Formats: sequence, C-alpha cells, structure tokens
Amino acid sequence: MSIGRPLEYDPTKALDAAMQVFWRRGYEGTSLQDLLTATGLSKSSFYQAFSSKHEAFQQALTHYCDGLTARLREKLRAADSGWEFIESVLMSAVGEARIPDDPRGCMIVNVATEFSSRDARISELVADGVKRVTRIFVTAVKRAQKEGRIAAGKDPNLLGRYLLSSLSGLRTMVKAGSTHGATAALVTVIMTALKS
Amino acid sequence: MSIGRPLEYDPTKALDAAMQVFWRRGYEGTSLQDLLTATGLSKSSFYQAFSSKHEAFQQALTHYCDGLTARLREKLRAADSGWEFIESVLMSAVGEARIPDDPRGCMIVNVATEFSSRDARISELVADGVKRVTRIFVTAVKRAQKEGRIAAGKDPNLLGRYLLSSLSGLRTMVKAGSTHGATAALVTVIMTALKS
Repeated sequence: MSIGRPLEYDPTKALDAAMQVFWRRGYEGTSLQDLLTATGLSKSSFYQAFSSKHEAFQQALTHYCDGLTARLREKLRAADSGWEFIESVLMSAVGEARIPDDPRGCMIVNVATEFSSRDARISELVADGVKRVTRIFVTAVKRAQKEGRIAAGKDPNLLGRYLLSSLSGLRTMVKAGSTHGATAALVTVIMTALKS
Repeated sequence: MSIGRPLEYDPTKALDAAMQVFWRRGYEGTSLQDLLTATGLSKSSFYQAFSSKHEAFQQALTHYCDGLTARLREKLRAADSGWEFIESVLMSAVGEARIPDDPRGCMIVNVATEFSSRDARISELVADGVKRVTRIFVTAVKRAQKEGRIAAGKDPNLLGRYLLSSLSGLRTMVKAGSTHGATAALVTVIMTALKS
C-alpha cells in the first residue's frame, strides 16, 4: 500500500475554474484543453477528478446553483422587507446584465437554452436549479404577504415562478439594448402584477 | 459585353436557407461550409451573393424579422380582439417552445444573447427587430384599450415592451422544463399587470 500522496489540486478551486469556463462558453463551446488550462490540471488528473467532460459540467452547474442560491438567501435575510428584496433583485439584474465584457448571463438559463430538453440528466439539473431559485422568491413573496404588500389570497408559488420568468425576460431585454430607464419602468409593471 | 447569363440561384431561397442555418447554429457555430451546403451555392457564388459571412448574417436576421413581423401583423389583423391576440401570442409561444427537436427559439433573442453588445451593427439590427415586434404589441394594447380591456390611461408603449419581455421570460421557463399548465398560469399573471 502506498502512503497517500498529497492531492495535487484544490478540488473546490478546480471546480470553480471549470464552472467559469463552462459558464462563459457553454458545454459544446468548451474544449478539454479549455478545461485543462482553466483548472491547471493534467489530462489524467482532470479525468481522475471529474471522470468526463459531461460529469464536470454537471458538477459545475450544481456548483453554480449552490453559489447563486446562497447569495440570494443571504440577500433576502439581510433585506429590510420581502418587497424590497424582490425589487432589488429585479433591478440588480438590470445592472448586471449590462456589463458588456461579461455576456455570461445566468448559467441555468444558458444551459436550458443550449440543451433544451435533449439531455435528461441536464434537464433534471436545470429543473432542480429553477426550483431552488424559485423557492427563494416564494419565501420573499410570503414575507411580502405578511408585510401587507402582496394580498394574502395570492398563490406565492405562482408569483415566485412569475418573478423568475420576469427576471429572465428583463435580462433578455437588456441584452437586446433596453436602456436603464426603460428597463426600470418594466420592473414597475412587473411588480404591479404582484399587487393586484 | 457579355449577354447576362441566368442567375444560378433563387436569391430569396438562398437567403432563407442561410437564415435557417444561422437560426439553428448561431453566428459562431455556423461555418462557411454549413452555409454552402444549406444554400447549394459554390464558394464564389456565395461571396458574390452575400459578400461575407457577417453580411449574410445581417441579411438573414433582417429576413427573420420581416417574416416574424409579417406573421404577427396578419395574426393581429385576423384576431377577434386586441386582448385575444395578446393572450394567443403568449400561449402559442408556450406551445412552440416545447418542440424538443426545434431548440431554435426566437432568432432575435438568440442573436442578442450570442453577441450581447459586442458588435455595433448587429446590436442595431437586434434593437430594430425588438422595436418592430414591440410596435405590433403596442398596436394590440391600443386596440385592447379601445375595447375597454385595458385602462385607457396606461402607457401602451410601456405595456408593449412588458409583453415582449414577458414573452421572452415564458420561453425560457418552458426551455427550463415548465409544464404546460404551469406556464399557462404564468400567462394569466402576466396579463393581470395589463389590467390593473
């Protein structure tokens, strides 16, 4: 039995690096060489760590969802109200999506667009990611209902999904050239549907 | 002077074929060979017809917008009411986007996503396409206002952009696995914001 030699890489750093490149280039657009360059791993270490490009992609997508939901949960926890959380997420998406050098958008949306329903395992991960993000919006809606900003009789699950759908639409409008003022006006309309 | 020899190709058919391949594969994903195969043109005929891949792409995107807006205008003209047109466009997007073998989505959205703001000429064409589609939604909103389904005091331009944004969000939700029933419920919420 050989004495365990120290790991040649930091697994979390390697996963994060793989995520960054998949996020930027998509699955098909990412070559094995891109992954090796990004992670700094040799071919054999990469396959030892991730088994395959497909497996690395699945781990990277899950890692992305973990980070996104952790940030959103923290933001909701720190927010003054559920209503302000909702407004702030919609508005920050407007700002983020305008960074011209960062056309990555939301990785879950990108993956859903690249794969559509052609890969059952990936579809499952996408649906799971959507569920996890939706759950945070649902929590925010329930909080806004308690605060009296959204009528108690409304279905928080439906409104949570509506917010996610609206957020995705907003991002696309920004990518398509919508100005900050025009997009902010859209946020107001989107939030109207929550109240009435 | 040579007597003009007959054109070796039908320009509209060639443009349509180029559009189909760009729509499916995006700009970067489309090779010159893909375009030659799709259009049936030789390399020299292709360059004679389109000058460059970039020029062909611009023409293809314009051709896509022409077709899309023509179909939408005809649908609005034939609709029983502005309100029903809006509902039917939102609902049909739900259905269309579910075709698993056709992951093309809306070409304008795809191009906006692929290029973001990195190419001024393409950004202009995307913004122009968005404007043209929005104009049809604005007309539908105005018609629904005359019909008393949307309050007369609402800004039809803002609601038109809201509908486009919502439509794009819906398509993404469907790609991400939203079921028909869940997506139809979203259409109801989206339309709520028009009324209140």
